[in-house]
Amino acid sequence: MLDFDHYLAELRGAVDDFLDRNLPAENAYPPSIHKAIRYSLFAGGKRLRPVLTLAAAEAVGGRREDALPAAAALEMIHTYSLIHDDLPAMDNDDLRRGKPTSHVVFGEAIAILAGDALLTHAFHILATVCVSSDRAKGDPYARRLRALGVLAAAAGMNGMIGGQVIDLESEGKKVDAVTLERIHRMKTGALMEAAAHLGALLGGGSDEEIERIAGFGREVGLAFQIVDDLLDREGDPAELGKTAGKDLKAGKATYPSIHGTERARHRAKELAEQAIALLSPLGPKAEPLAMLARRTVERNS
Amino acid sequence: MLDFDHYLAELRGAVDDFLDRNLPAENAYPPSIHKAIRYSLFAGGKRLRPVLTLAAAEAVGGRREDALPAAAALEMIHTYSLIHDDLPAMDNDDLRRGKPTSHVVFGEAIAILAGDALLTHAFHILATVCVSSDRAKGDPYARRLRALGVLAAAAGMNGMIGGQVIDLESEGKKVDAVTLERIHRMKTGALMEAAAHLGALLGGGSDEEIERIAGFGREVGLAFQIVDDLLDREGDPAELGKTAGKDLKAGKATYPSIHGTERARHRAKELAEQAIALLSPLGPKAEPLAMLARRTVERNS
Repeated sequence: MLDFDHYLAELRGAVDDFLDRNLPAENAYPPSIHKAIRYSLFAGGKRLRPVLTLAAAEAVGGRREDALPAAAALEMIHTYSLIHDDLPAMDNDDLRRGKPTSHVVFGEAIAILAGDALLTHAFHILATVCVSSDRAKGDPYARRLRALGVLAAAAGMNGMIGGQVIDLESEGKKVDAVTLERIHRMKTGALMEAAAHLGALLGGGSDEEIERIAGFGREVGLAFQIVDDLLDREGDPAELGKTAGKDLKAGKATYPSIHGTERARHRAKELAEQAIALLSPLGPKAEPLAMLARRTVERNS
Repeated sequence: MLDFDHYLAELRGAVDDFLDRNLPAENAYPPSIHKAIRYSLFAGGKRLRPVLTLAAAEAVGGRREDALPAAAALEMIHTYSLIHDDLPAMDNDDLRRGKPTSHVVFGEAIAILAGDALLTHAFHILATVCVSSDRAKGDPYARRLRALGVLAAAAGMNGMIGGQVIDLESEGKKVDAVTLERIHRMKTGALMEAAAHLGALLGGGSDEEIERIAGFGREVGLAFQIVDDLLDREGDPAELGKTAGKDLKAGKATYPSIHGTERARHRAKELAEQAIALLSPLGPKAEPLAMLARRTVERNS
């Protein structure tokens, strides 16, 4: 377990370092937007998506460096989605990771634009930042272009954004189990699936490997969101860095509110096991991915 | 002149048709977002950017079809920027092209998400939609990837978004001529430059041709914005489809407010002529681009 912590810290460090190097300085002109971008991007996120991307690249025998632009792009898109979701017109949250949200600190206009800029810059980085393997492989452009397509699809109207729309429109309505799972799979799962998918793709995986690892990300993504629902109900606000019980207070349907706490916990574990089973043909290289899946369902923040 | 009107109508038709075919139907699930996207995208925009892209492809001897995904992406990014700029937290506009703005019709949350979705889908289309020439040319992936990089840079924090940030932060302050030109070049010019650049690139132009046509777009973009400033001051609201005199009322610096109406008009014409001069080595194929530049400074809406 200690080794895995070390591995995680190493990947997170690589992601943070890459993000820092590929963003303008905080005092670049005009400063407000760069301050706002860095404020949210370096707010102590878990870096789950980019870590998943790098571990997926290694699981197919690639180098983690090959997947760094994709890993960074995923974290930037995740961060933009949080900034926009927290806006007064959306979830109206003023606390995130224990800190005031972007619009509270910088105002709504800059928060909207910081989100827009992060989304745009994610595609810019994935389209332009070269890595060493681009020269070595036969089809670097084709893989990058495929990666861009997968990322845009996952983040778009049939993925993350679509999930947020359905979620918003379900407020105050009775949400059934099918719709809730659809929301979770689109709003959270699509980007987690893309994180795994892009790692395997840019790590040079075969189509079968990519499909297995994307499936892994899909199941882990749903498991992650079910655990999020459980933590909102039962978690310690100090550890969460956000208000617990928020869904309950808002009368929002969650996995445990529909299925009960026990079944929710069981489902999350089951999904993680299904995800891990998909990795078996990949052998020991995929062990870190499996550990990541277990951590995801065992976490308490 | 009648022929040029026919040419414009043809290109606009090709763009509208492509957009329609590459977007989910209005009643796709969840309907609110798709209604909102189509409401703004088909609100009667001039399609100046995508027309520029298609004409630029033809100016280097390419087929307009080659540049359709880029043309559509540019119009989607332009439309998203209008939706977000109109939000209450930004310019707080409730009229656009003679119709209520997106947030007035669909609410702020859906307007923000429709903008996000258009931005994301623009990259999706440019990364994924194949055109016939992709098979014929030697390096289709490399050109597409370059196009994605150029588009993301133009739309991002050092381009359009950066310009909007500087514009917002200049409100109520004295803006000098240098800053105003910077705002115009970033907020409007960057995307116009990208529109021309992408057309030349995907039409298969040489590096020199691409550079000339991008420069053309850059100068026409500034001219376009100066004319916008002039129309805001002097235009007929019925023809503009938006409130005239808005900048004046808001005490906002514009090209005519700093330089006077006569100099502004002169500068716009001068920029158009400079832009047209860049095209001379391209010969008659570039004539439609030159006509477009003249139209841009002679328009009254």
